[in-house]
Amino acid sequence: MPLSHLADIDDALIARARGIRLACFDVDGTLTDGRLIYDDEGRESKAFHIHDGQGLVLLRRAGVEVALITARHSPAAERRARELGVRIHTGVKDKLAQVDALCAELGLDRAQVAFMGDDLPDLPPLRAVGLAIAPSDAHAWTARHTHWRTRARAGRGAAREACDLLLGAQGHAADLWEGIA
Amino acid sequence: MPLSHLADIDDALIARARGIRLACFDVDGTLTDGRLIYDDEGRESKAFHIHDGQGLVLLRRAGVEVALITARHSPAAERRARELGVRIHTGVKDKLAQVDALCAELGLDRAQVAFMGDDLPDLPPLRAVGLAIAPSDAHAWTARHTHWRTRARAGRGAAREACDLLLGAQGHAADLWEGIA
Amino acid sequence: MPLSHLADIDDALIARARGIRLACFDVDGTLTDGRLIYDDEGRESKAFHIHDGQGLVLLRRAGVEVALITARHSPAAERRARELGVRIHTGVKDKLAQVDALCAELGLDRAQVAFMGDDLPDLPPLRAVGLAIAPSDAHAWTARHTHWRTRARAGRGAAREACDLLLGAQGHAADLWEGIA
Amino acid sequence: MPLSHLADIDDALIARARGIRLACFDVDGTLTDGRLIYDDEGRESKAFHIHDGQGLVLLRRAGVEVALITARHSPAAERRARELGVRIHTGVKDKLAQVDALCAELGLDRAQVAFMGDDLPDLPPLRAVGLAIAPSDAHAWTARHTHWRTRARAGRGAAREACDLLLGAQGHAADLWEGIA
Repeated sequence: MPLSHLADIDDALIARARGIRLACFDVDGTLTDGRLIYDDEGRESKAFHIHDGQGLVLLRRAGVEVALITARHSPAAERRARELGVRIHTGVKDKLAQVDALCAELGLDRAQVAFMGDDLPDLPPLRAVGLAIAPSDAHAWTARHTHWRTRARAGRGAAREACDLLLGAQGHAADLWEGIA
Repeated sequence: MPLSHLADIDDALIARARGIRLACFDVDGTLTDGRLIYDDEGRESKAFHIHDGQGLVLLRRAGVEVALITARHSPAAERRARELGVRIHTGVKDKLAQVDALCAELGLDRAQVAFMGDDLPDLPPLRAVGLAIAPSDAHAWTARHTHWRTRARAGRGAAREACDLLLGAQGHAADLWEGIA
Repeated sequence: MPLSHLADIDDALIARARGIRLACFDVDGTLTDGRLIYDDEGRESKAFHIHDGQGLVLLRRAGVEVALITARHSPAAERRARELGVRIHTGVKDKLAQVDALCAELGLDRAQVAFMGDDLPDLPPLRAVGLAIAPSDAHAWTARHTHWRTRARAGRGAAREACDLLLGAQGHAADLWEGIA
Repeated sequence: MPLSHLADIDDALIARARGIRLACFDVDGTLTDGRLIYDDEGRESKAFHIHDGQGLVLLRRAGVEVALITARHSPAAERRARELGVRIHTGVKDKLAQVDALCAELGLDRAQVAFMGDDLPDLPPLRAVGLAIAPSDAHAWTARHTHWRTRARAGRGAAREACDLLLGAQGHAADLWEGIA
């Protein structure tokens, strides 16, 4: 069973996932493990996970629009987005406004949007969209406002689980599972 | 319940947290996971966590003074402090003296100070202040002299839990919890 | 007992391992923990584990050919391979074709090949070779197509366990265990 | 009780620890978590832990000679050793010979030496010295030849536990525990 590695999947969640056309991801603490690595010469690094990247690519290939949305300015995140061929919006003060702008551009309504985030600045979009997801180690005050928490931790496959849920709900998992895609 | 993700919160602890006006944090092993990353060209890096940074900002906005106090010289920690808008004191040999200097400057007494630390050099301030906190993976000889140990590990949200405790005890958690702040 | 630290070793697995002459390893998520560390100046880093490197060297000394096969371009992986004295093929789009090319060059058939991988691009070789291994934290859709999953996580000794299995099955473990090798 | 955070401490172990005058530590996988971080421009990094460094300094202050012994060439390890004021020997092919050379220089015999290591190249000294210690995540074939395994993992406080054992057995723990040292 393709989705057998995902926990707490009920029919209502599958129904929410089925209609998603745009999947938005916060960066720090969602696509990374939340660590901001600073060196003593002013450089900043962060770590993305290969499994998450694979999921975003599969999602895009399956026709779901993918956007990274972050409050920070991050050349590292921009490079990762470019590499994966997904949209990125950095320095975003109001994430819900950014989601709404994307909806307007793509002709979607909020119910067709999934948002994955881990902390208070993600709350407004998480409360507004059709499918709100948090990594297992999201902050508790935020996680409680989501429809689903992944089993994996942020930056360690949490985003991939979100992708798997969307791919599975939309009928693409069997192909992947068979190694055809 | 806003504080439901915090362990071992009793009334005495809430009472201690309620009066805190200055929150001091050690850096390595408290705001970081204790790792000092050295490259072969002499650079040093360390990793801060996005959740901890969010907590320090919320604390500052709630009117609690925040100071990082470290025995090491660290441009990385200085940059992180500047980014979060909090005080930082580096190269500090005597941390209790530094706490006392801050108390004098701010017109506070030690009972109004929280200190979070993880190892022997933190013992003098931990034993002197109104609220002494250790991350869950603090060294055992030091942790036993604190009023509270967080559930999260250092550099993985431990400092955020300390912030949540202060915010909750001082009546700001519900706002955050509601996503209003 | 030399292999006592390995889980789920049955006779059929030992039989598969006994005939292996070429051991192939994916890089990201197999020899590393899957993290791609990006800095804000365009550099990429990844972390190899000292235990895994030791295993690859022992395998090579025991007469088993070792090859790293990765879809990414990675000077870091190339340097690690050079240091360990093992083959590396980067930028590989079709990993099974690469395995077949190695078989042709070395005069082996697929049953004499072990492949260790963690995600969908590794599925074709994993399904074709004599011994397919996944690290414990491989993606579920891929791991189910392997003969064995290690107990250790990728980048934390998983590849070493694969080496230990091969060394043990081929009669070299006792020497190592005695510290003679 | 100062040593209450250490597991499996029996009288025989305390007796071994009491006579140690020289404590030797492998670097990768013992003082670090075994990760070798490579960037795509040829730089190598590794991570030391603040707790371990504190332990080495306390050990040295208590009159125990401390030496890092590694087979690799590592400017990072050399810098860390310099910072902590301990000896370091890099590029060491034969670790037991290095231990013997230190014994000759310091007028000690092997029974007065502690060695902490995690993998096969550490076996010869581990089998020869008075006190052999492995971090909890040492390789199984090596760990079985030690007198004691720490509870903490390498690079996460394992070396500190070894220091605590020596400090405790030699009567210095109570001072530290009281925060006097």
